[in-house]
Amino acid sequence: MYDVIVIGAGIAGLTSSIFCARAGLKTLIIGDIKKSMLADGEKVGNYLGFVDVPGIEILEKGLKQAMHYGAEYMNQEVVHSLQLEETNSFMVKTADAKTYETKSLIIATGTSYKESGAEGEKDFKGKGVHYCVSCDGFFYKGKRVAVLGESNLAAEEAIELTALTDKVTLISQRMEFEISDQMMGELEKNKVKMIKGNVIKIVGKERVDHLELEDGSRIDIDAVFVAMGTATGVDFSNKLGIIMDDEFIQVDRSMKTNLVGVFAAGSCTGGIVQAAKSAGDGCNAAISTIKFVKGIGEYVDQT
Amino acid sequence: MYDVIVIGAGIAGLTSSIFCARAGLKTLIIGDIKKSMLADGEKVGNYLGFVDVPGIEILEKGLKQAMHYGAEYMNQEVVHSLQLEETNSFMVKTADAKTYETKSLIIATGTSYKESGAEGEKDFKGKGVHYCVSCDGFFYKGKRVAVLGESNLAAEEAIELTALTDKVTLISQRMEFEISDQMMGELEKNKVKMIKGNVIKIVGKERVDHLELEDGSRIDIDAVFVAMGTATGVDFSNKLGIIMDDEFIQVDRSMKTNLVGVFAAGSCTGGIVQAAKSAGDGCNAAISTIKFVKGIGEYVDQT
Repeated sequence: MYDVIVIGAGIAGLTSSIFCARAGLKTLIIGDIKKSMLADGEKVGNYLGFVDVPGIEILEKGLKQAMHYGAEYMNQEVVHSLQLEETNSFMVKTADAKTYETKSLIIATGTSYKESGAEGEKDFKGKGVHYCVSCDGFFYKGKRVAVLGESNLAAEEAIELTALTDKVTLISQRMEFEISDQMMGELEKNKVKMIKGNVIKIVGKERVDHLELEDGSRIDIDAVFVAMGTATGVDFSNKLGIIMDDEFIQVDRSMKTNLVGVFAAGSCTGGIVQAAKSAGDGCNAAISTIKFVKGIGEYVDQT
Repeated sequence: MYDVIVIGAGIAGLTSSIFCARAGLKTLIIGDIKKSMLADGEKVGNYLGFVDVPGIEILEKGLKQAMHYGAEYMNQEVVHSLQLEETNSFMVKTADAKTYETKSLIIATGTSYKESGAEGEKDFKGKGVHYCVSCDGFFYKGKRVAVLGESNLAAEEAIELTALTDKVTLISQRMEFEISDQMMGELEKNKVKMIKGNVIKIVGKERVDHLELEDGSRIDIDAVFVAMGTATGVDFSNKLGIIMDDEFIQVDRSMKTNLVGVFAAGSCTGGIVQAAKSAGDGCNAAISTIKFVKGIGEYVDQT
């Protein structure tokens, strides 16, 4: 019986595991650091301590650190989880049909950015195709950039880019723009060029150099930021009866879900998709878990 | 005119600065990394990426990183701040009587642990005198430890230590114990020894080896965890009219204070005192600040 099983091996899951293992909890991480969104980061510079290093390096360090403090790591996928009422514990089943029992769970399965669907998108990930302006916008100071998306979220990414370059084009990608009057005003004020159209192909050699649109037009760019939203993959948590908030796991400030003994952290709980934010969530979830496992009352709020 | 002045150079302030500077904001940090609580950490192991390194090393890396992305750093103390209604900006005054103007403020002044008042406490900081079990408890597996404090907070620290060692003594330090029945039950269950008494001297050579109590008794220990609470130093923020929650700056989930253009992050906003949590706060505060400065409406919630 584990004290805690941490599902997910991104920054949130690994930070949780470091805290839990250090507190003496028997800790099992189930996940794959290579599936963390951070693993796609070519040059990560916004997590304090690391300047322009590949995200996978940070993840590898974090995993080593969690194991150094005694956490176990299983590179597996969780396919099912259940609450066992008779033993007041949880069962977790992995894709290799093994099961594990635990007193508590931390769900830190992250999220993934929705893709634009354009041909070539996967090939140029991190090489001109990006999903987060505050992560990667910095590398395109003064360059020509496009943002794909029809929503206020896409508008926001475009406006954020105007702090770095005056050559920003927002492309609706298939749909009509659905942008508030206020944001539309900001787009105009910041001279963002807007195109209603659909990028069907992202083209380049080593890096992206232009986009091809459905109407046959071509746009020369240095980078494209896909801003079509995010998708979580927490299907297994539905079976536990965890309350979701839209597609995200609903948590309170101490990262408790509606189920006693189940906590969640990082991007699967919504909010900003950033390593630093996930680290904070992971810390909060771990402290709550340590209190729970050590029997410091669920209803006593000492913090 | 700065886009943002970040007051405080701990993990929260530095993480904020990294994000703001990367987003192209003209960013000034006013503070002193050596005054961050993390700078007292002898062997920090619970911030992902660093195993058992002095806290000051992490802070130095973070500062270098913020400056690499264009932030300026002023090793100074803020003594006054004012909202300038005519220019819709803020004025910050430092101890050397200089003033700086900014469009927005991030307050990240941290907190400090209250000391026990025992002689020798300062001499052995990080060498057997500690303030946080989830930071430093790990180093005392199987060792003799004492916790000083009369409250549920102290009881919680003692119980957390029992995961690591069965030799835990809780000493009330001057006052009567004020511990809930539930926590008292947990202390008994986990066999924490309780002493009503006052440690007047912390004694050792290289490291702490025993405590002297007011009644003349002596307790041999390897470490003492002082758990008397925390104190923030945000007097200057009162003048701005920021609403406090007890001694902490009141913020919403996006780290906004009650004043438009003023954000706060890290331990000065309450919650868990941990580098990872402060990093998360700093990230959230910075994203809110970037939105504010770039004119993405205060009342449009895109996240």
